[in-house]
Amino acid sequence: MIDRYLTPEMKTLWSEANRYRAWLKVELSAMQAQAEAGEVPPAAYETLVSQAAADPLDQAFADKVAEIEAVTRHDIVAFTRALTERYGEEARFIHHGLTSTDVVDTAQNLLLDEALGLIIADAQRLREVCRSQAVAYKHTPTVGRTHGIHAEPMTFGLKFLNWMSALDRDLERLESARKRIQVVMLSGSVGTFAHVSPEIEQRVAAEWGWQVAAVTNQTLARDRHAEVLMALAIFGTTLEKIAVEVRHLQRSEVREAMEPFGKGQTGSSSMPHKKNPILTENVTGMARLLRGNAVTALENVALWHERDISHSSAERVILPDSTALASYAARRLAGVLEGLVVFPDRMLSNLNDLGGLVFSQRVLHALIDEKGMMREAAYTLVQRNALQSWETGEGLRDLLARDPENPLSAGELDAAFDLTWYLRHVDDIYARFGL
Amino acid sequence: MIDRYLTPEMKTLWSEANRYRAWLKVELSAMQAQAEAGEVPPAAYETLVSQAAADPLDQAFADKVAEIEAVTRHDIVAFTRALTERYGEEARFIHHGLTSTDVVDTAQNLLLDEALGLIIADAQRLREVCRSQAVAYKHTPTVGRTHGIHAEPMTFGLKFLNWMSALDRDLERLESARKRIQVVMLSGSVGTFAHVSPEIEQRVAAEWGWQVAAVTNQTLARDRHAEVLMALAIFGTTLEKIAVEVRHLQRSEVREAMEPFGKGQTGSSSMPHKKNPILTENVTGMARLLRGNAVTALENVALWHERDISHSSAERVILPDSTALASYAARRLAGVLEGLVVFPDRMLSNLNDLGGLVFSQRVLHALIDEKGMMREAAYTLVQRNALQSWETGEGLRDLLARDPENPLSAGELDAAFDLTWYLRHVDDIYARFGL
Amino acid sequence: MIDRYLTPEMKTLWSEANRYRAWLKVELSAMQAQAEAGEVPPAAYETLVSQAAADPLDQAFADKVAEIEAVTRHDIVAFTRALTERYGEEARFIHHGLTSTDVVDTAQNLLLDEALGLIIADAQRLREVCRSQAVAYKHTPTVGRTHGIHAEPMTFGLKFLNWMSALDRDLERLESARKRIQVVMLSGSVGTFAHVSPEIEQRVAAEWGWQVAAVTNQTLARDRHAEVLMALAIFGTTLEKIAVEVRHLQRSEVREAMEPFGKGQTGSSSMPHKKNPILTENVTGMARLLRGNAVTALENVALWHERDISHSSAERVILPDSTALASYAARRLAGVLEGLVVFPDRMLSNLNDLGGLVFSQRVLHALIDEKGMMREAAYTLVQRNALQSWETGEGLRDLLARDPENPLSAGELDAAFDLTWYLRHVDDIYARFGL
Amino acid sequence: MIDRYLTPEMKTLWSEANRYRAWLKVELSAMQAQAEAGEVPPAAYETLVSQAAADPLDQAFADKVAEIEAVTRHDIVAFTRALTERYGEEARFIHHGLTSTDVVDTAQNLLLDEALGLIIADAQRLREVCRSQAVAYKHTPTVGRTHGIHAEPMTFGLKFLNWMSALDRDLERLESARKRIQVVMLSGSVGTFAHVSPEIEQRVAAEWGWQVAAVTNQTLARDRHAEVLMALAIFGTTLEKIAVEVRHLQRSEVREAMEPFGKGQTGSSSMPHKKNPILTENVTGMARLLRGNAVTALENVALWHERDISHSSAERVILPDSTALASYAARRLAGVLEGLVVFPDRMLSNLNDLGGLVFSQRVLHALIDEKGMMREAAYTLVQRNALQSWETGEGLRDLLARDPENPLSAGELDAAFDLTWYLRHVDDIYARFGL
Repeated sequence: MIDRYLTPEMKTLWSEANRYRAWLKVELSAMQAQAEAGEVPPAAYETLVSQAAADPLDQAFADKVAEIEAVTRHDIVAFTRALTERYGEEARFIHHGLTSTDVVDTAQNLLLDEALGLIIADAQRLREVCRSQAVAYKHTPTVGRTHGIHAEPMTFGLKFLNWMSALDRDLERLESARKRIQVVMLSGSVGTFAHVSPEIEQRVAAEWGWQVAAVTNQTLARDRHAEVLMALAIFGTTLEKIAVEVRHLQRSEVREAMEPFGKGQTGSSSMPHKKNPILTENVTGMARLLRGNAVTALENVALWHERDISHSSAERVILPDSTALASYAARRLAGVLEGLVVFPDRMLSNLNDLGGLVFSQRVLHALIDEKGMMREAAYTLVQRNALQSWETGEGLRDLLARDPENPLSAGELDAAFDLTWYLRHVDDIYARFGL
Repeated sequence: MIDRYLTPEMKTLWSEANRYRAWLKVELSAMQAQAEAGEVPPAAYETLVSQAAADPLDQAFADKVAEIEAVTRHDIVAFTRALTERYGEEARFIHHGLTSTDVVDTAQNLLLDEALGLIIADAQRLREVCRSQAVAYKHTPTVGRTHGIHAEPMTFGLKFLNWMSALDRDLERLESARKRIQVVMLSGSVGTFAHVSPEIEQRVAAEWGWQVAAVTNQTLARDRHAEVLMALAIFGTTLEKIAVEVRHLQRSEVREAMEPFGKGQTGSSSMPHKKNPILTENVTGMARLLRGNAVTALENVALWHERDISHSSAERVILPDSTALASYAARRLAGVLEGLVVFPDRMLSNLNDLGGLVFSQRVLHALIDEKGMMREAAYTLVQRNALQSWETGEGLRDLLARDPENPLSAGELDAAFDLTWYLRHVDDIYARFGL
Repeated sequence: MIDRYLTPEMKTLWSEANRYRAWLKVELSAMQAQAEAGEVPPAAYETLVSQAAADPLDQAFADKVAEIEAVTRHDIVAFTRALTERYGEEARFIHHGLTSTDVVDTAQNLLLDEALGLIIADAQRLREVCRSQAVAYKHTPTVGRTHGIHAEPMTFGLKFLNWMSALDRDLERLESARKRIQVVMLSGSVGTFAHVSPEIEQRVAAEWGWQVAAVTNQTLARDRHAEVLMALAIFGTTLEKIAVEVRHLQRSEVREAMEPFGKGQTGSSSMPHKKNPILTENVTGMARLLRGNAVTALENVALWHERDISHSSAERVILPDSTALASYAARRLAGVLEGLVVFPDRMLSNLNDLGGLVFSQRVLHALIDEKGMMREAAYTLVQRNALQSWETGEGLRDLLARDPENPLSAGELDAAFDLTWYLRHVDDIYARFGL
Repeated sequence: MIDRYLTPEMKTLWSEANRYRAWLKVELSAMQAQAEAGEVPPAAYETLVSQAAADPLDQAFADKVAEIEAVTRHDIVAFTRALTERYGEEARFIHHGLTSTDVVDTAQNLLLDEALGLIIADAQRLREVCRSQAVAYKHTPTVGRTHGIHAEPMTFGLKFLNWMSALDRDLERLESARKRIQVVMLSGSVGTFAHVSPEIEQRVAAEWGWQVAAVTNQTLARDRHAEVLMALAIFGTTLEKIAVEVRHLQRSEVREAMEPFGKGQTGSSSMPHKKNPILTENVTGMARLLRGNAVTALENVALWHERDISHSSAERVILPDSTALASYAARRLAGVLEGLVVFPDRMLSNLNDLGGLVFSQRVLHALIDEKGMMREAAYTLVQRNALQSWETGEGLRDLLARDPENPLSAGELDAAFDLTWYLRHVDDIYARFGL
């Protein structure tokens, strides 16, 4: 991922040096288990652990690996040779009986686990912002819009509550996906444990508090990774849903809310009056990237026989990119929602802008329930006046009051056009969340 | 494709009976060429041509093929047997030396060619509607919006002109894609012409005015079909672009244009006042289907060796679906644009709604060019007043007139806030299209 | 979905008549709750329930709805009018205070729930076939291949065990997705319960044993549906993984297993010797369709404001199609695996075809562990002989025996080339599954 | 794109400094046209051109822009300020009347044009390798495989000829896409040329030999970019098709060709005998990335009104990534095909491995054409013997010779099993390409 969209944590996490540190962690955990099983000298393990702590793998090490790989064209071979150069002869006990993919795949799970941990924290923060804003605007009236058309009154807080609820589902999916890759695999070239017994795998898994991948071929099955990319892509759609809403609310004709606009910020190089919702537009584009990467992840599953390596080039791109983007976009959006500039007066004026059309349903029910009109006749009566209101701009209440076919009294009309009545169940909805 | 989204022409085109008629057309064309080359009896060909004309293949024939295929599990074998049952012994000369795929792929090209012909006609009609509306609203002022925020004045016709221009590009892509599948393949089991000489293929191509696929394996390379699906997916994005614009213009807060709303139409079962842009929302969803199918088409290209048949199940769905949807959506959108209800007064009132902010750039230039201010100072001056205008609702012109740092005279301000100046090059743009 | 790929159950499930029966179920459940709450006459509810049972909605009803919808352009309005025509005046109490989407979305969940139930049963059957074959071939030696190259010995049963394990993960994802749509929504035009109290929703959910959608706008959030389509797409990749393996095993050069080939079946219309893996190729193509539809589902999430209807046209296609394809492909594949023709002798001969190269790793370890060679030197020794074996076709064991640098005795070489040693942990792996 | 998959040319091309050089090129070209039109001082233009040549924009400049952008949050504003800092006061005439997007979009076209130029050169080189190998192996017999099953004889050169032909189509698509973005846009904030006359745009286009974008809103329509990404995605499928073939040919059971294997290269860290087709597996994965990015590009088209900036974050990733990957993969594949290790003897032995089954079609035709058997009877006769050959391993010719129902003489059987007869039209196919 380009620097622009990398959080500092993700930049470190997906650095080459950190990848090699993860590989080493797997190698050392396996070595520890093998030492306990009496298969390698415990002293060699202790020495290497100390060296790894005292002189952690860094970019210089990564450069050395790259140099060796240019000849061997095999990454783990280059890695183990570079380890020997750095840590000396004890390193020859590393990778004992292991297959490259055991190390690479299990280490990748360590990185993915960490990345998902960051994203889950970001999603939780965003969820908390939504909760907080939902409470803040619990009773702020605004118009609900369907198809972009004013429908009925609601409150601004309900928008945040919907997003909070969506984020709860995202968190569940992200946690499930994380569980799916919290697995250790040390099963050898074709998954038969030919050169390292299943016990080693089990010891490492127990040490980490993870599961073993109960049966594998050479690699972990890629449906696990597809599930991660899918959870991220769906998370991206939630972010997109929020972003699109902010963009709509900031439209010149709506102006009910807007992104925070920094001191010294320039909206347009040529039009000094502009304040554009660029942060949420930015997030919208990121959701598309997350979707594209999910497609790629799905294609990575059906590898040939006991594995081919076609997933590898694709994963080198999509795993860092999708995790980095998800984190970045979630943080960006949390900032936007936290600093959102909200105009409740404008909400109220928009709500009233259509002259009471948004109350049409209650009028309909009043005609049916209180006056006993047939549904179709009542519908026709209200629709006729509503369409006239659209055309002339006159208020629906006034038009109905003048309509000779309307049986509702002035008091009954007042009741039908009562905003508070529409919002009487808002507390019930919040109560479902303990808010 | 479900009936709901099938035009009558597409329904006929993709019917089973029509597919078999296309197969027969290929078989008969090959037979004609073989008859000319002295390889099959001309009389048999003549007889079959007459029979095919007098008693064209129909649904009953398709049912018969299905019945035989249930046993043979091979479609062309079932087809040729059913042909013999229907047209008698002369039919044994059919499929002489041909491979199934020669027939199936070439016949599919016939259907695709016809389908693309329909879509191109639909796109041309939509293009014509855009042209006509571009001319009708050539000088109708409206506000141009970027990021959803009022930017500068433009005319409503320019929106149509942009769409017309996009459709010209779509038509080029659709024509290119159509050319790509106007090819005949009669090259045998692995493309070597082992059992039918290249001459037969060339004769059929010449007869149809098509090209031969110069080299093939068993099938036509699927990049050809991917190009078709891609052209349709991009065409879908143009339709989506138009649809999204109509949806925006119909929003309650904008109300500058709306979809035609039928007599007796119901916007909402519960809210009698609603008029929703459901046709353009519908088209928006179709664009997504076209995209999804394009992904599938791309995956169909890398078949194994000289062919595998994994593309077949996918193509049975995506070829009819994407062509049918493209045609349906284009027609639907043409109807919407043709009947579009336009509110020029509302456009003007929206344009003026922000108190002249949309003229900020010309003020900026006046300060720089006429008053010699440095760009940054001028920008700061205009931005400061513009932000105040956003907050207070006062007009930018009035605020500037009161600002002691503003060096522009009243006359100069009037010039800067002149709508017609902004539109002075509209004719030049139209002239590029001869309009 | 085209008839060809529709199981009978899915065809019934996604029929128009069944959709209307689902709508009616929602309407009647709401009415029951409203009757209990004293809002509509219990007698009307009882009458309608009887009518619905005695005269269930059928295709004729669907045609009637279509006829009315042609005028109203609104599906629920057409539906309720058609209900009144069919069941008489009591039907006027139906849809009382409900919003169309309450009914449409909740009813769609009923259909999706049923569809997922079918798919889960299909997946379970496929899982059972895999389990059974895993046991049957538990100790059948075969060569494990990575990158398409012979790697090390394994057993044929392990392939099935891997698939069984993948299907277990799929079942978890499908169950999660199913839970995600087992929700009732009766929350009104913008989710405020303005016209029907939350109690009605809760009563219906309790009656069905489902959850309420705790907060909504007009629709259910589409991340729920995206999760379903994603679970289906990933399920498709598992089917694809299995299908690709069967296709590989049936290759002429491999011939270790093949699809059942029916009596009377024709492999090729022109090449009588052919037996092609067409069923698994067919499934491979279906996996692509499932992926394409998942992309579309992801785009459906970010609807505008409290909803737009752009998801609707897309869902009319992808929901039936993806559920139908998943079911069809799973059944097809279960049949293939159940009837798979397996050639254990051929497996053994392929395993030995490379002259023992597949034992190279154990030789390597013997050199390092038993002879104390440095890893690199040992690797070089084995690689040199292995490459010579590739080139000359001589067996690796023989070449090593002749290599003056090889320190291993004949007995040690025999041990290194021992097939059973490689398979000694197979039982341990099966034990993890209680097999 | 990660460094690993960046060619040196692409790394330079997509560097930040080069992006700013492209911006400057657009600014200076516009300035030149404005100078000619008398709108800015020619001397200022001359000065800046000299400065840009003498002191080209570099990474330090990019860092300065980033620093300023951190405050302004607007890239072009930061750019012009940084230009003034670097080149002095004359730089104030830069960007005169231009809108950011005019510069950014037109400059991006410069970069895309250059990138496509590189890719087209790479594709041409790959095409040339295919041509050369097609000629080299024109008459090398090999078995053609459909569904992975031996079908009929062909020559190895025909595989290359098919790829060459596919690459010709790719080159056409890439050239079309390149034309599509060889357009200049200098049309202002909403495409009205309010502040810069159309003449300036036309002058720049003429100077570059490009077209003007005849009508625009603020941005170039994104169908242009979608076409580029689509052409790249389809190109990727051609690369994938080739890569998958090499992977198949290198399989242990096939061994007809293999990737070049470098001196010192390691196939597996644990299995010294392995030579894996990792380069073509790598390319296979890249094709998936190109597909995923194409999806994203399609979603970028339907921007809101006269533009929103949601495409920008997506394009920052997909444009460099897809162009870089296409170039890298094409070069990699050219190297593989150029150095491909080919085993013609193995091809011949595989061809004969099935005991002549691949000649079944000619036997069929001999029975029908020469012996007058009905097609079905002949088919049954050949299929019966072929299936027996599959089962017993006996040659088809021998079985037929023994079959009492076979009417063909020994001489006629010899003719039917003649390899050269199958290849007699190969020259005709090559002649279509002048080869």
